This record gives sequence, C-alpha cells and structure tokens, in this order.
Amino acid sequence: MGEDNAVFIGNKPFMNYVTGVVMQFTTKGAEEVIVKARGKFISRAVDVSEVASKRFLEGKVSVKDIKIDSEEFQNTEGKRVRVSTIEITLEKK
Amino acid sequence: MGEDNAVFIGNKPFMNYVTGVVMQFTTKGAEEVIVKARGKFISRAVDVSEVASKRFLEGKVSVKDIKIDSEEFQNTEGKRVRVSTIEITLEKK
Repeated sequence: MGEDNAVFIGNKPFMNYVTGVVMQFTTKGAEEVIVKARGKFISRAVDVSEVASKRFLEGKVSVKDIKIDSEEFQNTEGKRVRVSTIEITLEKK
Repeated sequence: MGEDNAVFIGNKPFMNYVTGVVMQFTTKGAEEVIVKARGKFISRAVDVSEVASKRFLEGKVSVKDIKIDSEEFQNTEGKRVRVSTIEITLEKK
C-alpha cells in the first residue's frame, strides 16, 4: 500500500476530510486508508475516522489499528519542542 | 483493574495529568493506566500519554492499546450531537 491511501488532517473544512476518506474506499476501491494528524489536529483525525466509519460507511469499514508517537525538533528560537502524532488505519470489512 | 487507574483529561494544567499518570505507576504501583478523553481533549490525551511514557517513564511504560469510539446524544436544543472518545492504555513493561 502506498502513501496514496493516507489522508492528512489539517484546517480545511471538516467534511473535506470525511469525503476524502469515503472516496478512497468507494471510488478508488482502497482496502485500507490511513488518517494521519499532528498536534491539535489529532482530535479532528478521530472525529473524521468516526464519522467516516460509523455514519458514511457503517458496517463496511472499521478501525484496524491506531498508532501514536511523538517527534521532537528545535523551533526557530532553538527551543526543543515535542509534537504528538496519530495514525488511524481504517479497513474494509 | 478498577476505574481507579483511569485518568480523565480535561482543562486543568497539562502537567497535572502527566504527574497523575506517572504517580499511578510509581507511587501506587499500577500495572496499567488508562488515559481517557472526549472531543477536543483527545489531542491532549495523546500528549499526556507521550510525555508520561517517553519522557518520565522512558523504557518502563509503553502503549498497550488505543481505542476510539463516539457517543451520540441530544443537546439542550434537541439537536443530535456526536462526540468522539479515546482510551489509551499504558502498561508497565
């Protein structure tokens, strides 16, 4: 599976992401879609996954795996900053 | 394991929750701690879990399981509202 099946969550309108996930499964026939987010967008990634799998693809798609991690880097002031990440793998039932 | 080992994430200072998780493992000798959150606090639950397991309890605690779900209810205006939830189970290695 390539990165084509990943949906990165940001600050576009919520339904854009839900539609993105749903279309990967329906139009593009994906077996798996990975919903990815960092920092404050993590809550939104969970919302997108829940709405896509429970409302739009109910009974057809379920959560296969969830991974959390964190990345540390230096910001522009040289301060060490840690940001959390999530990857939610949805799969066709 | 009782609900005593659960830490509910809200809008108190961030380090309160990290300390809460760390103390469950150290002072109270818990084998598992479940970090729970709803809605916008989900991102924070991931941050708390990452900081507790990677910075304060590095090599001693790891993520055992992550569950996401959602609850639907009627708000005060009678509108149906859906809220996402997360449960992150941390375990002693």
